[in-house]
Amino acid sequence: TTTITNDAALKTKVDEMLSTIKWDKSGLVVAIAQHIDTGAVLMQGFANSDAILATIASGKATFFSRSRSSLWTKGETSSNFINVKDVFLDCDRDSIIYLGLPDGPTCHTGATTCYFTRAPNAIDDTQDTTASFPLTTLFALEETIHNRKSQLMDGSVSKPSWTHKLMKDHELLCSKIREEADELCRTLESNEGKDRTASEMADVLYHSMVLLAVQDVKLEDVLEILRKRFTQSGIEEKSSRK
Amino acid sequence: TTTITNDAALKTKVDEMLSTIKWDKSGLVVAIAQHIDTGAVLMQGFANSDAILATIASGKATFFSRSRSSLWTKGETSSNFINVKDVFLDCDRDSIIYLGLPDGPTCHTGATTCYFTRAPNAIDDTQDTTASFPLTTLFALEETIHNRKSQLMDGSVSKPSWTHKLMKDHELLCSKIREEADELCRTLESNEGKDRTASEMADVLYHSMVLLAVQDVKLEDVLEILRKRFTQSGIEEKSSRK
Ligand SMILES: [Zn+2]
Ligand SMILES: [Zn+2]
Ligand SMILES: [Zn+2]
Ligand SMILES: [Zn+2]
Ligand SMILES: [Zn+2]
Ligand SMILES: [Zn+2]
Ligand SMILES: [Zn+2]
Ligand SMILES: [Zn+2]
Ligand SMILES: [Zn+2]
Repeated sequence: TTTITNDAALKTKVDEMLSTIKWDKSGLVVAIAQHIDTGAVLMQGFANSDAILATIASGKATFFSRSRSSLWTKGETSSNFINVKDVFLDCDRDSIIYLGLPDGPTCHTGATTCYFTRAPNAIDDTQDTTASFPLTTLFALEETIHNRKSQLMDGSVSKPSWTHKLMKDHELLCSKIREEADELCRTLESNEGKDRTASEMADVLYHSMVLLAVQDVKLEDVLEILRKRFTQSGIEEKSSRK
Repeated sequence: TTTITNDAALKTKVDEMLSTIKWDKSGLVVAIAQHIDTGAVLMQGFANSDAILATIASGKATFFSRSRSSLWTKGETSSNFINVKDVFLDCDRDSIIYLGLPDGPTCHTGATTCYFTRAPNAIDDTQDTTASFPLTTLFALEETIHNRKSQLMDGSVSKPSWTHKLMKDHELLCSKIREEADELCRTLESNEGKDRTASEMADVLYHSMVLLAVQDVKLEDVLEILRKRFTQSGIEEKSSRK
């Protein structure tokens, strides 16, 4: 892989970028590591100029530890590196995002991300979603479907929901998936308008995700396949494997 | 909506939570606002105890401005509030996530998020993906498909890609969507294994997203529908509209 030290043009561009950063009194910016497939915020640390240089050069998320006053690369002890594909700066240049792919759980506790503590809120806690992670919509839906599956396994379902019914009856599930794909196509063929298209796409996604859950396939694995097929960092990965 | 001042039990729980936070020397933690549907990191600021209390009480992302030494609610001047559904703390309790839904663009520049500056990197810049935002896989794919559509509109396509062909031939596109849905179902019906399931789901997603692009429907709109149908914050929204 290209490193900064042997790529003078890149070094110049990176130095230019670093000179525009608005460091705080300690010479740091906030550095947020985000999962390139799921969008999950993995962890947050701080970075100085050397940490950002090291991250771009090595492709491993590197931070500055305020308590130890030294650089540290996430994964240097656990081997759970965060492989950074891209770095972004915010509008006033005092905050950066490391967008990357973690080798394993990010948190030292073994949790996928460090943000596993949900603050109390005004929402009724007896609801179905008890996720302690900040799950975005698709992953919250995946979690809900997963919970339905656990209820079926437990035998704790008294009044089966639609998701329960689909999970128990694969013929029904598959006929729904084919039907919803057909309905999605008809929105184009019969020019049914954007609202119906979005709604039918939601139907396709939900029913397909039930099928994924039935087969224990994670959405994250599907996203990984899409990234490898289509995106720049996927192409890069393929060529680096040659 | 329930406010903290008239809900003593919630106030107690929130106070307990606040007492566990590891404030920095200035009494602050890093506060990251994240889009509940797309997972995009919208902005990053700092929060003191009052800012977190105000966020939980009002449901609007509130920060402490270090330059003005005062609380500010994102959107108080622009009306582009971030409607916070949930707050999460990290493992060592010095960083929080406001998970919410923005009313409009988050950045004062009018950009969707504040992170619109891509740092130089070792990846060949002549590639197709020139997104300046930290797009995660599905949104990077949406962007790639969108670029293909723009190329078709420009008439700048000399060697049409598969995506171009699907976009020009709606009969082909719809027959592929129906075929891929069928192939996804067969992975369950014929027990073809998890790898094939993930791969066929990727096919379904990609081809469906081409149809969305043809009809100018954004994935974000589909996710909003799913959230309103399935998740807790969707359920909450529905009941608050009664
Ligand atoms: Zn900033
Ligand atoms: Zn952690
Ligand atoms: Zn239907
Ligand atoms: Zn439908
Ligand atoms: Zn922390
Ligand atoms: Zn901004
Ligand atoms: Zn047409
Ligand atoms: Zn096929
Ligand atoms: Zn296929």
